[in-house]
Amino acid sequence: MCSKMLRVNMEELTVTTEEVPEEYEKLGGRGLTSRIVNDEVPPKAHPLGPNNKVVFAPGIVTGSGSPNSGRLSAGGKSPLTGGIKESNAGTPFTKTLARRGIKAIIVEGRAEKDKYYLLKLGDDGEDLIEADKWIGKGLYEAYDELHDEFGDDVEIAGAGIAAELKASNAGISYTDPEGRSTRYSGRGGLGAVMASRGLKFIVAENTKENRMEIKDKETFDKGKKKLANALMEHDVTKKGGALNSYGTSVLINIINESGGLPQRNFSEGSDDRSAKVSGERKAELIKERGGVRPHKCSPSCIIQCSEIWTKEDGKDPMGVLEYESVWALGPNCDIYDLDVIGELNRACNDLGLDTIETGNTIAVAMEGGLLDFGDGEGALKLMDEIYDKTALGRILANGAEFTGEAFGVDRIPTVKGQSMPAYDPRPIKGIGVTYATSPMGADHTAGYAIAPEIMGVGGEADPLDTKKADLSRGLQQATAMIDSAGYCLFIAFAIMDIDEGMEGMIETVNGVLGTDYSADDIMKMGMDILEMEREFNKKAGISKEDDRVPEFMKEEKLPPLDEDFDVPDEELDRVFEEA
Amino acid sequence: MCSKMLRVNMEELTVTTEEVPEEYEKLGGRGLTSRIVNDEVPPKAHPLGPNNKVVFAPGIVTGSGSPNSGRLSAGGKSPLTGGIKESNAGTPFTKTLARRGIKAIIVEGRAEKDKYYLLKLGDDGEDLIEADKWIGKGLYEAYDELHDEFGDDVEIAGAGIAAELKASNAGISYTDPEGRSTRYSGRGGLGAVMASRGLKFIVAENTKENRMEIKDKETFDKGKKKLANALMEHDVTKKGGALNSYGTSVLINIINESGGLPQRNFSEGSDDRSAKVSGERKAELIKERGGVRPHKCSPSCIIQCSEIWTKEDGKDPMGVLEYESVWALGPNCDIYDLDVIGELNRACNDLGLDTIETGNTIAVAMEGGLLDFGDGEGALKLMDEIYDKTALGRILANGAEFTGEAFGVDRIPTVKGQSMPAYDPRPIKGIGVTYATSPMGADHTAGYAIAPEIMGVGGEADPLDTKKADLSRGLQQATAMIDSAGYCLFIAFAIMDIDEGMEGMIETVNGVLGTDYSADDIMKMGMDILEMEREFNKKAGISKEDDRVPEFMKEEKLPPLDEDFDVPDEELDRVFEEA
Repeated sequence: MCSKMLRVNMEELTVTTEEVPEEYEKLGGRGLTSRIVNDEVPPKAHPLGPNNKVVFAPGIVTGSGSPNSGRLSAGGKSPLTGGIKESNAGTPFTKTLARRGIKAIIVEGRAEKDKYYLLKLGDDGEDLIEADKWIGKGLYEAYDELHDEFGDDVEIAGAGIAAELKASNAGISYTDPEGRSTRYSGRGGLGAVMASRGLKFIVAENTKENRMEIKDKETFDKGKKKLANALMEHDVTKKGGALNSYGTSVLINIINESGGLPQRNFSEGSDDRSAKVSGERKAELIKERGGVRPHKCSPSCIIQCSEIWTKEDGKDPMGVLEYESVWALGPNCDIYDLDVIGELNRACNDLGLDTIETGNTIAVAMEGGLLDFGDGEGALKLMDEIYDKTALGRILANGAEFTGEAFGVDRIPTVKGQSMPAYDPRPIKGIGVTYATSPMGADHTAGYAIAPEIMGVGGEADPLDTKKADLSRGLQQATAMIDSAGYCLFIAFAIMDIDEGMEGMIETVNGVLGTDYSADDIMKMGMDILEMEREFNKKAGISKEDDRVPEFMKEEKLPPLDEDFDVPDEELDRVFEEA
Repeated sequence: MCSKMLRVNMEELTVTTEEVPEEYEKLGGRGLTSRIVNDEVPPKAHPLGPNNKVVFAPGIVTGSGSPNSGRLSAGGKSPLTGGIKESNAGTPFTKTLARRGIKAIIVEGRAEKDKYYLLKLGDDGEDLIEADKWIGKGLYEAYDELHDEFGDDVEIAGAGIAAELKASNAGISYTDPEGRSTRYSGRGGLGAVMASRGLKFIVAENTKENRMEIKDKETFDKGKKKLANALMEHDVTKKGGALNSYGTSVLINIINESGGLPQRNFSEGSDDRSAKVSGERKAELIKERGGVRPHKCSPSCIIQCSEIWTKEDGKDPMGVLEYESVWALGPNCDIYDLDVIGELNRACNDLGLDTIETGNTIAVAMEGGLLDFGDGEGALKLMDEIYDKTALGRILANGAEFTGEAFGVDRIPTVKGQSMPAYDPRPIKGIGVTYATSPMGADHTAGYAIAPEIMGVGGEADPLDTKKADLSRGLQQATAMIDSAGYCLFIAFAIMDIDEGMEGMIETVNGVLGTDYSADDIMKMGMDILEMEREFNKKAGISKEDDRVPEFMKEEKLPPLDEDFDVPDEELDRVFEEA
């Protein structure tokens, strides 16, 4: 457990260390960020206004050395959805916070207009330092300069050019193990919330001393071992397994085959050209070019699904090209060239944009006639508009729904204002139930029904069956708790299928907290988090009528399976009404 | 009563004449448009999508020759608010529909992408005619050309360049008695709904024969006389009275004096320079220049609050410069020059934009740093961006909230996405209760609490008293019914203060319909309309948490009275909870 909270008041330019209130002691990650946002942010606050806050919290087990525990939650009221947001990232930055004993950083108030600061966390205390010189600079360059200034042994969180625009698709970037801007709390625009406070970066010195306390070391160690074993055993997560070999992009061929890989702004569910951007093809190219594959996104990772993608000549290492990013910037825009996709992804990392939202934005702009489907060069030029902060750049940086409104498009694949990820909900209905009902807006990670629906992990479910409320609810509960524990969601494959893995995960949590939670307790805590988030949303004006997929997905059947989204509203409402 | 409905299917390019269903027989204006939208448009329809419709309906007494009965309701799902919309205009176009026996025109389906048509209503039937040649043309010029083509004896409804952009602030323009594009269903973006159907204009030939039937002529005539007498007697509405002498702009000095005339994006409530744009000053200038004042917006008007504003040399007659427009494009942008305001208003009329939303948009853009407050020349250049359909023009044409999001502004004076009119709700709280709770979004006409709060009409109410739920509810009910009857809202001054006027109004309705409604019945019918509209909104995802003014109005006190908006949420909720 971590023992302190930092409160950063950007209006006063002060950093205060606070004791962790008793009621927060057993919380971490998403459970903690959502709790603090609930307790401190008025639901009707303007996301960029004086009363919103951005909260960072490592998970419960983060910093403990438990496998795949390098996750960080960022929370606040989302400018994209208008509701509560937790956006989760894997990054070494999080273990640095945890090892410093920091359970949460709460950033509140707003600095003088257009002034930016960086928060330095070091052995000699916390400082707010002027950071105006990085305004307008891409994050790759900025992180290099920050390393020059503060040394290599620091981890960084940053708000980029998109965040300077206060744009709703501005994420928060974090360092990867090589120190680059490639890890993201991408979704929901929390970068704009950070930048609207006047906070540009957090630079955290790594520390040898570990202040992260484990209450019951024996239970913890037992659990850690069980969990590690499960991860090393399961086909999806083991060394040489699907994720390790091909990364998340292993899904390109699988989902394309299923008829659920959206092409050209969710107009078709499959295209033979998708193979050109598959994980298998990408792994070959990385090998040929001398990139890195597999690779860890944070130190404790066993799965190692990450990679370092480079340009054709093996130069300009960019970071990972995730499945979601490849799809969003690729097939969804009728682009089937990994190098074009890679450069679009690099621009997103550099500008501080979520790739899923950006890919959907480009596709919607294509649908609106701004450029042709398949025009990769044109798409790259759009990124320049954001660098240049033009009016068009401002439109694009605000995401797909905003861009759709600007260009009069009525086929916009969003829920609660947030773009859908790489699974069309029409032929894979359970993930659609998650998109529709998650308090986060359309989010595959919120309740990954793809596992049972497509991969046969955690049971099997017919993707075309519309009865998915119970499945989605269970997954959303488990996810809320995994996001709170600080584990990578990918442990779910192993703990759903291997009982010892589940036991181990719970034991690590109990070990850190000194608790005796059962699996039922964990699931109940997951539901408590969801209900708290939904309560915030309700007070923010989000009603059950917002728990719906967009109209066009009910009107248009998706080829080749010719399915529309026919899950009845009552089934969607059942997710939480029968919780 | 009118005897037929026209159904215009833009996908099939057909016009069908339908009998009026029995349940619609006693309805008209807003009561009818809201009913048809409720019955036919799915609340979750995308406003620009295939299932939205735009409905036109003259009021119950429109075409009867009753005084001030020249009002038209346009209805649909609003792209601006996401809820139901009725947008009311005074125009000769409406009596032409009524005299043709047309109770409603329902425009549904969508034509082929980027194809436009005009609907011609003539003695020889209804035609849909290609109208692509008017794409990109301003409405003043387009209306001139339409008159050249179809003769002077036609009335026109039109969607302008803003509507071609499918922008959320695109209104529907109608002819004034001189045939110019100056009368508007401005609010809520129904022009975009019309244009997204592929309908550019409706051209209706005037007709000598009047098919508008009056069931009980005796009762009607009695009522008409009483109403006319009341209008000619009341200080606000009589010849030489406030509205007749100075137009709606008579309010500039009055509201400025009250501390409630928003200046510089709702930053102050008064400025001595407001006198430069007052109704009194404007009337002098019109006289000097040889413009027209007073003037009727539609033939049956007794009040004659309208005018024809011209350029300094007396040329280029533009139409009326209303109080709301003068304020929005003037003091709210720190502009105190009637000629600049006039040219901004001309651009709005020509582009097909609501002036209130446009003025708020410019002010928000000023707040966001796009141009300086007071920069009239800069504001006029922004209009060119819309003419040129640039990215910036697309931002601006989508209204204040959209523009605020694009430029990272958190002080945006909207409710349900629609900009506030010319009364700051902080020092005049009853109008704030109407802004917050009207199903239409921020709308002064929805329940004009200014009458008792500032003008001492219809009783007296302390503007600073926060107990305004009952007042606002009563006004909203009465307004819903006046908007259904087809009367100009300004008859309210006379019928609230003069009992015979109220009797007369009800008798004209009873006379036309052959009914025996009491005042209580009328009020109940008003509430039925409101509840129907709220039910639509609820199903569209608008909850009571959306019945709120923006956060900054609770946070910032407005000088000079230093009032914030302190009406408790419970009082806002009481408007409809205790209905």
